[in-house]
Amino acid sequence: MSLVVTVVPGRPAVVVDSTSALIRADDMGVLRGDGVFETTLVVEGVPRDLEEHLARMAVSAGMVELDLPAAEAWQDAIRAVLAVGSPQPQASLRLVATRGPESGGDPTCFATLGPVAASTLAQRDGVSILLLDRGFAGPEAAKAPWLLAGAKTLSYAVNMAAQRYAKANGAGDVIFVGSDGAILEGPTATVLLATGRTLTTPPGDGILAGITVRRLYAAASRAGWNVREAVLTPADLGAAEGIWLISSVRLLAPVVAIDGIARAVGPQQAELARLLQVPGA
Amino acid sequence: MSLVVTVVPGRPAVVVDSTSALIRADDMGVLRGDGVFETTLVVEGVPRDLEEHLARMAVSAGMVELDLPAAEAWQDAIRAVLAVGSPQPQASLRLVATRGPESGGDPTCFATLGPVAASTLAQRDGVSILLLDRGFAGPEAAKAPWLLAGAKTLSYAVNMAAQRYAKANGAGDVIFVGSDGAILEGPTATVLLATGRTLTTPPGDGILAGITVRRLYAAASRAGWNVREAVLTPADLGAAEGIWLISSVRLLAPVVAIDGIARAVGPQQAELARLLQVPGA
Repeated sequence: MSLVVTVVPGRPAVVVDSTSALIRADDMGVLRGDGVFETTLVVEGVPRDLEEHLARMAVSAGMVELDLPAAEAWQDAIRAVLAVGSPQPQASLRLVATRGPESGGDPTCFATLGPVAASTLAQRDGVSILLLDRGFAGPEAAKAPWLLAGAKTLSYAVNMAAQRYAKANGAGDVIFVGSDGAILEGPTATVLLATGRTLTTPPGDGILAGITVRRLYAAASRAGWNVREAVLTPADLGAAEGIWLISSVRLLAPVVAIDGIARAVGPQQAELARLLQVPGA
Repeated sequence: MSLVVTVVPGRPAVVVDSTSALIRADDMGVLRGDGVFETTLVVEGVPRDLEEHLARMAVSAGMVELDLPAAEAWQDAIRAVLAVGSPQPQASLRLVATRGPESGGDPTCFATLGPVAASTLAQRDGVSILLLDRGFAGPEAAKAPWLLAGAKTLSYAVNMAAQRYAKANGAGDVIFVGSDGAILEGPTATVLLATGRTLTTPPGDGILAGITVRRLYAAASRAGWNVREAVLTPADLGAAEGIWLISSVRLLAPVVAIDGIARAVGPQQAELARLLQVPGA
C-alpha cells in the first residue's frame, strides 16, 4: 500500500491512503498525460538527491509551461508523508504535478510513498535488454521544443509499451536507439558504459538529464575515474567491458544480455555500487 | 461544468459532478499517461459515430494491451450520463480507460459529458496553423509497435505542447510533418485537402485513423466526389484549393493561414459542412 500527500501552497499537507480517490476525472493529468513527475529512492527514511529532483522537476515544468509550487511546499509535504511512514528500509517517493482540471485552475500536485517493486530490486542483480528504435534522432528532437525530448512528463505510454514489448520478447528492459543510430536511454533509465576506469554515457541531446549518473560521475571523479559523455552506437555497447542501466530507484542494473546475447557483468560493478552507495552493496 | 459517469462492468453506472474526486493518485493514467480515450460530439443529446469511436478505442486498447469493458457497458454508462443532462445543443462526450492502480487491478473507465470549448467552435470559422516537425517518419513509426503511432493514448503531452507552441507563435493549431517530409496529422485532427471535387488525406501509416474523415468520405463518395489517400508534402498544401482540420468535436475547421501566410477558404467549404452535417451549416 502507498501513502499520498497533497501539495497545496499555503495549506497544510494532508496524508491519505492511496486507495482514496483524490483526482478529478477531468484532470488534464488523466485526460492528456499533461504534467511532470520525479521518482527517487528513500533509504531509512531519507530521500536521495531530493534537491536535484526538485530542480529537474522545475526544468520539466518550464518545458511544459506549468507553474509549480515552491520547493519548500514540496519539502513540507514530503516531510509529512515520511513522518507517517516509510514502509520499508527502501521505499519509492514520487512527485507529480499535473495541469489541473480541464476547465482551468491550479496544478494538481501530490507525492506518493510506497514500496519498491520486487522486479525493480531484482534488476540490481542483472537485466537483459532489447535495443529498440525510438523513432527519432536525439539531436534533431532537442531542436524542437514542442517534442518535449528531455522533459520528464506524465506521457509515458511509449516508455511503458516498450517495456511490455521487451517482457513479451524475453527481455527485462529496453535501450532506445535513435533514428541516427545513436544510443539514447532506457524508458526509465540512463545508459552507462565502463571500460577500465573510464565511464561513458550518451550526451544530453533529446534525452533526460540523469540525476543518478550525475551523482555517480561526481563520486567517480573524486575517486580518480575518467567520466565523459560521447555519442555511442550499438557497436560501442558490444565493445564495452560493462553496461548498466542507472536510475533513481533501481540505482544500478548490470546489463546481462542484449537482444538475447548474454554478456558478462563488468568488473567495475562492485566499485560502482559502492560509489553510488547502493544499499547493501 | 461537466458530468462524469463510471463504467464498471456488472455495476450500475454512477453519474457525478466532475468536481468530485474520482481517481486514485496512484492510477497509471495519472502516473504514466497509460490508457486510451475517445472524444465525440453530442448533438441534441445524440453522440455522433458512437459505434465507430467504441471500435477505435478497442483498437487503441489492443495496441497498449488493455482489457476494456464490453461496448454494452460503455453504452449503458453513456445513456445514463445523457439522461442526466446534455448541457448544450452541442456537447462533448469523452470516453477514458486507464490501466488502473499501479498495484494492479481493473482498468479505470469513465465517460465525461461537458460543453464544447468556445475556442473549438470558433475554429469552424477558420484556423491558422504552423507546420511543425513531428520528429519521426510515419511509415517507419508504423513498423515499431512500441511507439504506439496510431493509438489514441492518454499520453498527449507532445500534442498539447505543440498547440501551446502554435498559440505562442500567433497561430491556432498545428499540422505535423514527418521527418521524411510527409504531412502527417494535426495534434487532435486529421488533415484534409480539396481541389475541385477531389478530397485527399494522408495515408494511415503512423497516424490516427480519423473517424470524421471516414464519415465525410462515405458521404462524399455517395455524392459523386473522388476521395483518396496520398502521401502529401507541404508543397501539396500550397497547391490545394482548400485545406481543413477535421475531428470529431470541432468537425470542420478551414485552414486560413499556414506559417503566417494567409490563404483563402476552399470553395468546397459549404458543401463539405453539409456532407458532414455540421450543426448550423
